[in-house]
Amino acid sequence: MSPHRSAPAPALAVVGATGAVGSILLQILSQRADVWGGIRLIASPRSAGRVLAVRGEETEVLALTEDAFEGLGAGDVVLFLTPAEVSARWAPVATARGAVVVDQSAAFREDPEVPLVVPEVNAAAVRSRPRGIVAGPDCVTAAMIAALGALHAEYGLAELAVSSYQAASRSGRAGAEALRRQLSLVAGTPLGEQPGDVRRAVGEDTGPFAAPLALNVVPWSGELRADGWSSHELAVRAETRRILGLEALPVSVTCVQVPVVTGHSLTVRARFEREVAAAHAREILEAAPGVVLVDDPAAGEWPTPADAAGTDPAWVGRLRGSLDDARALEFFVCADNLRKGAALNAAQISELIAGESA
Amino acid sequence: MSPHRSAPAPALAVVGATGAVGSILLQILSQRADVWGGIRLIASPRSAGRVLAVRGEETEVLALTEDAFEGLGAGDVVLFLTPAEVSARWAPVATARGAVVVDQSAAFREDPEVPLVVPEVNAAAVRSRPRGIVAGPDCVTAAMIAALGALHAEYGLAELAVSSYQAASRSGRAGAEALRRQLSLVAGTPLGEQPGDVRRAVGEDTGPFAAPLALNVVPWSGELRADGWSSHELAVRAETRRILGLEALPVSVTCVQVPVVTGHSLTVRARFEREVAAAHAREILEAAPGVVLVDDPAAGEWPTPADAAGTDPAWVGRLRGSLDDARALEFFVCADNLRKGAALNAAQISELIAGESA
Repeated sequence: MSPHRSAPAPALAVVGATGAVGSILLQILSQRADVWGGIRLIASPRSAGRVLAVRGEETEVLALTEDAFEGLGAGDVVLFLTPAEVSARWAPVATARGAVVVDQSAAFREDPEVPLVVPEVNAAAVRSRPRGIVAGPDCVTAAMIAALGALHAEYGLAELAVSSYQAASRSGRAGAEALRRQLSLVAGTPLGEQPGDVRRAVGEDTGPFAAPLALNVVPWSGELRADGWSSHELAVRAETRRILGLEALPVSVTCVQVPVVTGHSLTVRARFEREVAAAHAREILEAAPGVVLVDDPAAGEWPTPADAAGTDPAWVGRLRGSLDDARALEFFVCADNLRKGAALNAAQISELIAGESA
Repeated sequence: MSPHRSAPAPALAVVGATGAVGSILLQILSQRADVWGGIRLIASPRSAGRVLAVRGEETEVLALTEDAFEGLGAGDVVLFLTPAEVSARWAPVATARGAVVVDQSAAFREDPEVPLVVPEVNAAAVRSRPRGIVAGPDCVTAAMIAALGALHAEYGLAELAVSSYQAASRSGRAGAEALRRQLSLVAGTPLGEQPGDVRRAVGEDTGPFAAPLALNVVPWSGELRADGWSSHELAVRAETRRILGLEALPVSVTCVQVPVVTGHSLTVRARFEREVAAAHAREILEAAPGVVLVDDPAAGEWPTPADAAGTDPAWVGRLRGSLDDARALEFFVCADNLRKGAALNAAQISELIAGESA
């Protein structure tokens, strides 16, 4: 009884359905227009057999084996919310069946044959995918790229300097739990005034962080690369260049972790090819998809990660024209690292692909 | 029995001796070479009569009245660790007696007749003080200026971009206590994942912060100035220019508060007149007074505010040459905002002045 439908609704398979990002994705699927035929949940054998609600239906989680991909084919989407090594191992199994893979890990982000897509900025790139794989960006890039893309379209981005204030749930449930455990050890104490007292209270087990995160900030995220750069910093630079199509964009970036559970924040200084007026930039951001401007310091209004957590948009505030350069702007942006930084962006890409066969 | 002394040792009066910075100052005085004759403690009438240990001697705190300055004169130093309005009111009372005022508030920092001094960078400026007043900088400026000054001397600073990660004790004991109270309300809970849950748990009383600081970062510090800038951001720009003697230096800065008790952190991107090699910059910072380089990411070594709290130096790490600009460096710096950011710098200035009459 669907005379306009030229093909059956595509199936969606979610690999990594039981993790922190997977749980958010299932919430998101229940809130968005339902474009899917069957939805299949896949996870590590340890989580297989669990029953999760998907669109109100109880759905058993399958173990990640060859069999889990049985019956998937052209037009279907397999969404990987898994560590890079899992995506690298299993994505080819899905594409071999003809399904399109949407991967949220770092496994394919630097592959020139894999488009890196943020739908608000470069949706068209999803159509050119020679390997049958589409990647979403790192959660820090994702937080700022819709705002930057809108400003770039108007003024032409010429240079970028970014500092991050990254949330613990970047490291999934283990990150959030480690932060909570550390906070319970230091909260209400007079700690934090003497060298080493926070380290002693937290102990050696700092979880996924390279140092205690409670009552502290940690200027390290990712793995060591050449000349003292971290993999996450290089990723923000490379991904911003790819998504905006600016292969030589100068980007300076320092990634710092802060004791926030969910919600990445960034300070952004952007210099453009053309002169910018803050009032005009404000209009552009007010109209930009995926961006909400909250910027009235006189009323105490600017975004914070605690307010951005659990929400879809990138929240922008503190927008100011540079005092020294008529072509430069500064702003502050917050976004939920599990949503726009991961599950939401992956869902949006998957819907773009589903729409191709509609 | 001091044949080389041409004058008696100068007296020191400390106004604001009982506050968070005052307490640190008394510790610092007991640890440094003792250049002082009498040391007199002054505070608001509310704190007068308290007895504090100074150099091992019990000393009664005097109430801040005209009488408290009785007997002070030329060669003596009156150190104000007070809010700007208190400094503005009482500094002239001290200078009228011939004493030199060292003020750590914002009251005189923009006065062209008041030198703004960080001894590691511009000690000589202390000698030219037509009003008899010397000011110390804001704690954010203080955290980075020794490192920047050393690099500027070698390469010539041309442009600066700074993002701060400011500790709660910037707002004194009230700030530290408000953060602890907020953390005890949220620690160990599953809060921080839904919009508004941290705000609800913390309640309306956010202390001296413009929003809850526990499990959050707050992109606001100071008072609103034109075009969306905050007074603290403008102070960092103006003070950096003054101390380095670069009146037209382009400075971009965003001030953000983080849930750390003590220890400001900053990401710094500096562009110079000349090309910089990171290895050479490292040598400069290793030799710079007031700076300690802790920078071995392979060994997990970089500074954090929890390690900087309670210590004197500015700790620099994550030093990297820009990937896109042979004249630019990026680094991360932490310093105790109550020490180098306030009490220590004020003690250093006071000692410079005491040394003049030795």
